Amino acid sequence: MRNEIVAPGAGELTYEIRNIVTVAEKVQSLGVKINWENIGDPIVKGESIPLWMKEIVAAEAMNDESYAYCPTRGVLETRHFVCDITNRRNGAQITPDDVIFFNGLGDAIAKVYGNLRAESRVLMPAPTYTTHSLGEAIHANAIPVCYRLKPEDNWYPDMEDLECHVKYNPQISGLMMINPDNPTGMVYPPEILKKIVAIAKAYDLFIIVDEVYSNIVYNGERTVPISDLVGDVPAIAMKGISKELPWPGSRCGWIECYNSDKDPRFKKFINAILSSKMNEVCSTTLPQRCLPAILTHPGYREYLDERIARYERMSNITYDYLKQVPGLIVNRTNGAFYMAVGFEPGLLTNRQSLPIENREVRELVEGMVNVPGVAPDKRFVYYILAHTGICTVPLSSFNTEMLGFRVTLLEKDEQECRRIYTILTEKIAEYLAS
Amino acid sequence: MRNEIVAPGAGELTYEIRNIVTVAEKVQSLGVKINWENIGDPIVKGESIPLWMKEIVAAEAMNDESYAYCPTRGVLETRHFVCDITNRRNGAQITPDDVIFFNGLGDAIAKVYGNLRAESRVLMPAPTYTTHSLGEAIHANAIPVCYRLKPEDNWYPDMEDLECHVKYNPQISGLMMINPDNPTGMVYPPEILKKIVAIAKAYDLFIIVDEVYSNIVYNGERTVPISDLVGDVPAIAMKGISKELPWPGSRCGWIECYNSDKDPRFKKFINAILSSKMNEVCSTTLPQRCLPAILTHPGYREYLDERIARYERMSNITYDYLKQVPGLIVNRTNGAFYMAVGFEPGLLTNRQSLPIENREVRELVEGMVNVPGVAPDKRFVYYILAHTGICTVPLSSFNTEMLGFRVTLLEKDEQECRRIYTILTEKIAEYLAS
Amino acid sequence: MRNEIVAPGAGELTYEIRNIVTVAEKVQSLGVKINWENIGDPIVKGESIPLWMKEIVAAEAMNDESYAYCPTRGVLETRHFVCDITNRRNGAQITPDDVIFFNGLGDAIAKVYGNLRAESRVLMPAPTYTTHSLGEAIHANAIPVCYRLKPEDNWYPDMEDLECHVKYNPQISGLMMINPDNPTGMVYPPEILKKIVAIAKAYDLFIIVDEVYSNIVYNGERTVPISDLVGDVPAIAMKGISKELPWPGSRCGWIECYNSDKDPRFKKFINAILSSKMNEVCSTTLPQRCLPAILTHPGYREYLDERIARYERMSNITYDYLKQVPGLIVNRTNGAFYMAVGFEPGLLTNRQSLPIENREVRELVEGMVNVPGVAPDKRFVYYILAHTGICTVPLSSFNTEMLGFRVTLLEKDEQECRRIYTILTEKIAEYLAS
Amino acid sequence: MRNEIVAPGAGELTYEIRNIVTVAEKVQSLGVKINWENIGDPIVKGESIPLWMKEIVAAEAMNDESYAYCPTRGVLETRHFVCDITNRRNGAQITPDDVIFFNGLGDAIAKVYGNLRAESRVLMPAPTYTTHSLGEAIHANAIPVCYRLKPEDNWYPDMEDLECHVKYNPQISGLMMINPDNPTGMVYPPEILKKIVAIAKAYDLFIIVDEVYSNIVYNGERTVPISDLVGDVPAIAMKGISKELPWPGSRCGWIECYNSDKDPRFKKFINAILSSKMNEVCSTTLPQRCLPAILTHPGYREYLDERIARYERMSNITYDYLKQVPGLIVNRTNGAFYMAVGFEPGLLTNRQSLPIENREVRELVEGMVNVPGVAPDKRFVYYILAHTGICTVPLSSFNTEMLGFRVTLLEKDEQECRRIYTILTEKIAEYLAS
Repeated sequence: MRNEIVAPGAGELTYEIRNIVTVAEKVQSLGVKINWENIGDPIVKGESIPLWMKEIVAAEAMNDESYAYCPTRGVLETRHFVCDITNRRNGAQITPDDVIFFNGLGDAIAKVYGNLRAESRVLMPAPTYTTHSLGEAIHANAIPVCYRLKPEDNWYPDMEDLECHVKYNPQISGLMMINPDNPTGMVYPPEILKKIVAIAKAYDLFIIVDEVYSNIVYNGERTVPISDLVGDVPAIAMKGISKELPWPGSRCGWIECYNSDKDPRFKKFINAILSSKMNEVCSTTLPQRCLPAILTHPGYREYLDERIARYERMSNITYDYLKQVPGLIVNRTNGAFYMAVGFEPGLLTNRQSLPIENREVRELVEGMVNVPGVAPDKRFVYYILAHTGICTVPLSSFNTEMLGFRVTLLEKDEQECRRIYTILTEKIAEYLAS
Repeated sequence: MRNEIVAPGAGELTYEIRNIVTVAEKVQSLGVKINWENIGDPIVKGESIPLWMKEIVAAEAMNDESYAYCPTRGVLETRHFVCDITNRRNGAQITPDDVIFFNGLGDAIAKVYGNLRAESRVLMPAPTYTTHSLGEAIHANAIPVCYRLKPEDNWYPDMEDLECHVKYNPQISGLMMINPDNPTGMVYPPEILKKIVAIAKAYDLFIIVDEVYSNIVYNGERTVPISDLVGDVPAIAMKGISKELPWPGSRCGWIECYNSDKDPRFKKFINAILSSKMNEVCSTTLPQRCLPAILTHPGYREYLDERIARYERMSNITYDYLKQVPGLIVNRTNGAFYMAVGFEPGLLTNRQSLPIENREVRELVEGMVNVPGVAPDKRFVYYILAHTGICTVPLSSFNTEMLGFRVTLLEKDEQECRRIYTILTEKIAEYLAS
Repeated sequence: MRNEIVAPGAGELTYEIRNIVTVAEKVQSLGVKINWENIGDPIVKGESIPLWMKEIVAAEAMNDESYAYCPTRGVLETRHFVCDITNRRNGAQITPDDVIFFNGLGDAIAKVYGNLRAESRVLMPAPTYTTHSLGEAIHANAIPVCYRLKPEDNWYPDMEDLECHVKYNPQISGLMMINPDNPTGMVYPPEILKKIVAIAKAYDLFIIVDEVYSNIVYNGERTVPISDLVGDVPAIAMKGISKELPWPGSRCGWIECYNSDKDPRFKKFINAILSSKMNEVCSTTLPQRCLPAILTHPGYREYLDERIARYERMSNITYDYLKQVPGLIVNRTNGAFYMAVGFEPGLLTNRQSLPIENREVRELVEGMVNVPGVAPDKRFVYYILAHTGICTVPLSSFNTEMLGFRVTLLEKDEQECRRIYTILTEKIAEYLAS
Repeated sequence: MRNEIVAPGAGELTYEIRNIVTVAEKVQSLGVKINWENIGDPIVKGESIPLWMKEIVAAEAMNDESYAYCPTRGVLETRHFVCDITNRRNGAQITPDDVIFFNGLGDAIAKVYGNLRAESRVLMPAPTYTTHSLGEAIHANAIPVCYRLKPEDNWYPDMEDLECHVKYNPQISGLMMINPDNPTGMVYPPEILKKIVAIAKAYDLFIIVDEVYSNIVYNGERTVPISDLVGDVPAIAMKGISKELPWPGSRCGWIECYNSDKDPRFKKFINAILSSKMNEVCSTTLPQRCLPAILTHPGYREYLDERIARYERMSNITYDYLKQVPGLIVNRTNGAFYMAVGFEPGLLTNRQSLPIENREVRELVEGMVNVPGVAPDKRFVYYILAHTGICTVPLSSFNTEMLGFRVTLLEKDEQECRRIYTILTEKIAEYLAS
């Protein structure tokens, strides 16, 4: 190639959350049975799509129009449908022009941050889902700027830390939240959301809230959508069907833009996002056409409640096991289906290990952890994987300096869940003592 | 907003190819019946998806796995399937790792150019499909760099012009073709492809070929895929099902990467593209799962042949009408379903018009064309639209200085086709004489 | 021009500190006698260069070598000379390779910030000398990032504010000070410098100190050069002869780089700075050749002491006058020859004025202040100028939100100084009451 | 350092033209007597500044005003003086506002290219003086874009190549020439300048001409300043006293801007350049104040003529020697004091050498030339240096693919000149035959 052709920073970031799959597959191919506690796809974890839902999709697949392009913003009827849901809450009011469908929230996230000026930064939670933090970091060609979620207080945001980041960094132009949160399972209480909106208003910022898990809450919690509280602050809510139906393979999500008429810079920003979608024509048609029929189906609420009840049960089992392990910092989760578990500072070292019988597996793991710069929780995760077959994700790969691990709460079988966490708690203790 | 938040250049480009739809809808709402000769979606133009195809999709929709995430690169079986098609030709050989699925070619195009270094340019044809030219221009924050397609010679590329652009602009790092071409309907002859490959080899460039229309050829032509001729030159072929099945609403396309092992800079580039897809997890699952079953269905070839025969027929009718109009530069098309028609230089002015009876329509059109900087072919297209209801696209919106218009060849009814072009040819003469 | 050719941001910043001269010249041309209390050039303000110093320069001008290029870093003997001065203090030790001469500190500042990565920011004081803040802002294509100097406490830095900016903005990579300071006349006490060095060390930052006024201190103060306290923190001191000899027309200044061997990123940065000087061959030869002879001349100390004593006198007179004006925030200065005076919050409005008799002058001033966005202290400065002929600089033009004005302490005649400040104090009161 | 702090590309370029000095000094320190035929500073090569000139400077050094800042654009009287010289020719007419003084042309070059948009390129000659080509390349973060000077035709520009670069690269926004040229000694004939102006006009470009050597022409030639022929094309002429007085140590040069009122984009560009000088306050005062007195001194013309006659003599001696060497491509020079000598293609290899007796010198040279990627003419230059002590510069370091070397014509002693070229011609033959 006569020229260097790769953009600076492109392809240089590591996606530990995906790398771990490659590693676990290798370990599996060497004979170890894997428990995939890293995976956030309910279907892969064994959930069934209800027959009625599949029948809606299959019926729609018999419709020629499902094969055609849809408008750039998305299918008009579906945009009316999602507007109604929001408008009925009597918070921020929107029209179908304020809704843009994307090929999943990954696409929405890439376009939102990709149309931002490099010098304008969006403040992220830490830990956070890396699709957000990497998307924002790539746009800025710099490390993410983050506020702390407090492991000592239900993973709620450290509001002082958040406001200080806004106050002392004039490049901060927006605030991002995931509600309910991935990877912590925390649900933002309304008082905290109000404070965040107040900070955005005081400092003239916009807000992004990823609400993809908004209907997956339990332990008596409910999600307050940002549209309820946003007032006249410019904001983007990100929503989707990947996790809720669940239909992650649909790549179907959307953004709702609140108050884009209230700030000319924000309006220009939303138009730039729309333009970049326009250059790709539109997003997937079929899932958009199915969406209203599915969400209004008489069986939907019951189906969702049954799943949520199961997540609640698994969450509490997981919590009850892990909270007993000395050295772990664990919070009960209230939404989504992830739990982030921290180690108390100083507990993890670069020398701890667990025995790995299989020579090839041992060499594989040792080759990966005995290189400079490996985070101690990555070491922990790899040894647990190789020794027990239980696959988790290092917490440090979620854009935080805190060490720990993330598990998902998608185990369907309560006995299996208990078996896994019996082993895990035992082995954590053994690892820490090694 | 306390800061400017929009990236330089973002949202500033106009998409005349999409704007015309908005204008035509307004004209329609004012009572004018529209013939949508601008639209490239066969389904919207009335084609039916065959029952067997819909049944394949519907059946797959009953499968839980169709709802799950797929691997970042795409469904493994489908990647094997498309590899086999390519490898059987005995040209460039690939493995499933050389294939990456995207949410349509629009997504692929955005990620390919988006991962390029701003200073490294890809040479485009002119006229060209704007998703390519705008995608490349946005990455470079500069106007597109283009080689000329020759209206006087079947819209074949001006090879001297192409090589000169490579020779005299050291920032050119890649060559792009669309084969068969949108908007010209030209099919690249093998000798020309060979010359382009030779230039890429001589100057150490990579090649991108958009082959989304590769199986839609007629008049005795056939497409030679770049994989047949590419030798050891690094290249990306872009393929998809949007136009062929047709299933544009699927947002399902893929790239095949040839010779990524032969050049470390190219390999790094492909990895960067993969990383940006990885950050969005993956592309749509369902269409990928249907793809092999559809393409290997016994009815597929016959179905495709029937459609192609129709395009051939409509192409020749359109050609026969338009070639008779003095002042037009028309070429018989051999592939895809577009025809680009030029005006001889100097024929169009900023004063020509056609009478528009409806006062509101007249004011709408006059308000849009009587502003400084409006291309004379945009003026032409708007007057034709308002006067006749026939909606075309200005050629100048395809990234070329040549004036003209693009029509699609998707009319299903031969009589309707003849009626439209009878009117159009008459009105063109009237417009030119006005 | 076929392309836009101006770099984003280039030429868009306003230099009120220089604009005021243009305005004052117009006012002068309309018949108003001006007192130039804005000017920081002692010679223009009437100081004489001592005969012995001019004779050294004139003698050097008879030497052919004074006409030749010098090495890129500067004349070797002179670099040895300035190294010795620094090394004798027994703080940071340097060799001639750690010294680079520039065409004045303006050139040094442009090259230092110009070689910084856009995403890496240097934290500035506010208020600050705009050559620093604009140089840094242009490199980042963003507004300056600043810590507060406290008007309520001798303009000392607000250390908490400084550390918070470092802590909450991960893009901060360096800390900048001017010591003694322009525009406040503050001299950094050693305890504060030590704290700043400690913060740089704790957060792994580099330091830039502009020490061009380091030998102009009074009221019993002395400047502690950063080299005394820097320890092993990478740092750049900026030094020059513009203000001290004074010889601003020489465009001769230099940087001393401390600890460039202790951090590879810092070393690479210094090399990049050197490379950009190399591309311009070298800096002015003659002043460098004169520098050691002047600074070691037996008359030098006495000459400098006499000037400093005068600055001290004028500073105290100015202070004594201004501190009596209700609503002003004034601090005694201890170095350099500027005084920054603030107004208490809320005192200045966009409606205050002073009568301007001359119609043309009145129209000129009213035309400039009655446009949206004019800072209230700019309005104040223009009315004072037009009404009294006393030319000052708005404080808000020094990169601060605080409103006020800057005066210089270069008046040579004590009586004239008293006359000017008698008028100024009276007119400030009148303006505030208007 | 917690962040990477160096701007991409900064400090990465090599300055072979300066590196060779370091190498030659090492060779010298190992006992080899060096003939510095690489140096372009007449004073270092032994020319004397005439007494009357030094007396003018010394007298001016006794004037206090010479020590003060001057206006940002430069000393007004001097700007009037240089305007008059240009305006008297009755070509482009300028006012003092069209003149900006810089700290030498290196500073002017850095600011001119530094204020250009990265995507807008200036076409350079090849070979060229690297301060131009590197300055432009750094601004674009890409390799220089160049037109060919023809060694087979007096190093005149290849006009077809020049126009093709403009035609086929839409990012080309300006054309650069050095007239008379460094490193070729070519003087642009008026017909060629007219063609270049015509191309600039046809393609709507601006022109930069470095005319620092404009008064150093011989062999009956004279320089036609671009102001004579520029018509209404926007252009910048770069002028200075470094080479003509010669006073390179003054760092005093200026630009004259022609037709800045004729193009708003060009005007904005000039204002951006002025702003960046404004942020550094101004350029050196003393040389500007001396300039009119020196250039109008009665002895000036005679002094210059004497020097030029010597350059002519040395040029012709050098030419007569080198033209006899088979394999060399040599042109008689007509201006400046450099000669660029090419090797016929294929003559230089990576295996040729000359014996080096001194073991340390031999090891030094072998260590530098026997590494991958060393240009064959760099190898040649280093062997000649080590074997003969004659120091030249590789031609490939002047931004060209042509291999050869550059010598200066500043030898004062005709006999010494003959001696050097007797040796050089002999050794070139020996090297080629090795």
